[in-house]
Amino acid sequence: MPAVPMIELWRGGMLESMHLGHAVICDEKGEVVEAWGDPDAVIFPRSSCKMIQALPLLESGAADAARLGEPQLALACASHNGAAIHTERVARWLSDLGLGEEDLRCGVQMPDDPAARKELICSDTSPCQIHNNCSGKHAGFLTLAKHLKAGPEYHEVDHPVQRAVRAAFEEVTGETSPGFGIDGCSAPNFATSVHGLARAMAFFAGGRLEGTPRERAAARLVAAMTRHPELVAGEGRACTKLMRAMGGSVAVKTGAEAVFVAILPKQKRGIALKIMDGGTRASEAAVAALLRRLGAIAPDDPVLARYLTGPITNRRGLAVGDIRLSPGFAA
Amino acid sequence: MPAVPMIELWRGGMLESMHLGHAVICDEKGEVVEAWGDPDAVIFPRSSCKMIQALPLLESGAADAARLGEPQLALACASHNGAAIHTERVARWLSDLGLGEEDLRCGVQMPDDPAARKELICSDTSPCQIHNNCSGKHAGFLTLAKHLKAGPEYHEVDHPVQRAVRAAFEEVTGETSPGFGIDGCSAPNFATSVHGLARAMAFFAGGRLEGTPRERAAARLVAAMTRHPELVAGEGRACTKLMRAMGGSVAVKTGAEAVFVAILPKQKRGIALKIMDGGTRASEAAVAALLRRLGAIAPDDPVLARYLTGPITNRRGLAVGDIRLSPGFAA
Repeated sequence: MPAVPMIELWRGGMLESMHLGHAVICDEKGEVVEAWGDPDAVIFPRSSCKMIQALPLLESGAADAARLGEPQLALACASHNGAAIHTERVARWLSDLGLGEEDLRCGVQMPDDPAARKELICSDTSPCQIHNNCSGKHAGFLTLAKHLKAGPEYHEVDHPVQRAVRAAFEEVTGETSPGFGIDGCSAPNFATSVHGLARAMAFFAGGRLEGTPRERAAARLVAAMTRHPELVAGEGRACTKLMRAMGGSVAVKTGAEAVFVAILPKQKRGIALKIMDGGTRASEAAVAALLRRLGAIAPDDPVLARYLTGPITNRRGLAVGDIRLSPGFAA
Repeated sequence: MPAVPMIELWRGGMLESMHLGHAVICDEKGEVVEAWGDPDAVIFPRSSCKMIQALPLLESGAADAARLGEPQLALACASHNGAAIHTERVARWLSDLGLGEEDLRCGVQMPDDPAARKELICSDTSPCQIHNNCSGKHAGFLTLAKHLKAGPEYHEVDHPVQRAVRAAFEEVTGETSPGFGIDGCSAPNFATSVHGLARAMAFFAGGRLEGTPRERAAARLVAAMTRHPELVAGEGRACTKLMRAMGGSVAVKTGAEAVFVAILPKQKRGIALKIMDGGTRASEAAVAALLRRLGAIAPDDPVLARYLTGPITNRRGLAVGDIRLSPGFAA
């Protein structure tokens, strides 16, 4: 089944641009409740699966052995802005492990946070690996590697850390991964279907502190994300704004190339979607539409207008267009 | 006819993202030589039609009355970076007209040029309308408005400047525009088909200094663009890099929402394309592919690899993927 029209941009009463994609809503059994496009389309989840990559950190006992708190667990699931609230916590986390920035393998990234960016640029200071949006995930990898007494190249696909990630990933997606790519942060990113990713999110939605070790790990990670939305992304970012708008009842996570997932414990639903062209504006609009459809966010919440309808304003602040759902998608 | 697959992004040996679009190559008669997708698809050219919007500036005699040189004509066709080479020329142009920044109607934009951006951010200085990437086009509009002794609201669709732009636009596209949208810079942007836009570019390719006033205007604008590629966009930008790589023999221009056009005087061809989803990375790759197909750029030029094939590198500089032409497009 091909990707289907999901998000449209209109200007002057005419369609200007359109985004196609695939989306799946799964129930607690991992069955498809609703789907658009091809549920079996194979995708790279990219950063949308960071909570899956964090499962072995908790299940192994490594997180508790290192006395990680909820902020660290939220950062392990984060694609953060590189703001001080993120980088200071990751730096302390590394030093508590007896490690440093040089032990990371995520690479250097200029932060998106305006204040952090301004400070670096105006002082002619280069960013470091702690500024990388994935530095919390990598601090989690290092925590697990230390607990497993494994080697320093924790990002290599045959390292015990990534072998544990792959096992957890295949179990919660319910699929044998057809392969992996190397992510922007140099960690392996395992492929799955949109259905598999939604099934994994439905598993997280069913996480229970009194359940199995994996169910308990899932519940703790979802709690960390929903209680610390500012740590999962940052001020002004869609993940943070959407989680705040839903009052901590839903966890959402974006991924590069326009992947978006949502974990809805009350509704016992998991959502996964991929916009074929990698356009983030469309993945943000599409997940907002599905959250509205499932009653997770108030129809009159201004955050919905921000991502779902526009208006699109120009450089003089004039409304020049709007965002629309394509007919047949999540109306 | 639907949009067709044009540009693919691959990672780990798997297709990760794909862009669909429409593209047309026209000959000097305005006939379709080759097309992909729907030649009749209606699009907003956005900034890709700035050389069309500049035709009345020359045809009216306004440019010569104001003694505009080639740099000003290039800036009238530009979506510039807001670098000093752009803003200083536009500021001088306005003052030579006896006007100032406050007479512009394009709105304020933070420049993309790293040095100009750093200077503003680190001095806590707000950008002004001269930094707007369209300020050269608007200086051209003001030059024409003054020549026509018309009012100051030159951006309004019923103003003599925009009426002249619409007439020229419909004549060179060979179509009655079905309507207009308001662009990011608040000027009207008239819609046309991909074929109409390619037909207009073929007209520019046939521009002759010894021809009609319009053919002469077209030839002067193409010469200005190809001789001043750094003024049409800026350092590091696709338009500038591609025009430099082609040694001044071809003019190219990007537009918002993934429109790209090319003017090939030697081949007597015009190219227009629109990526449906508005993804600029794909419009840049697609125009590079068509320029290669028409023999306008050397197949081994490194600029082609930059836009057409990748590799896609990650934050540690590792090659993690590549860009590919979809089967059947411009191979």
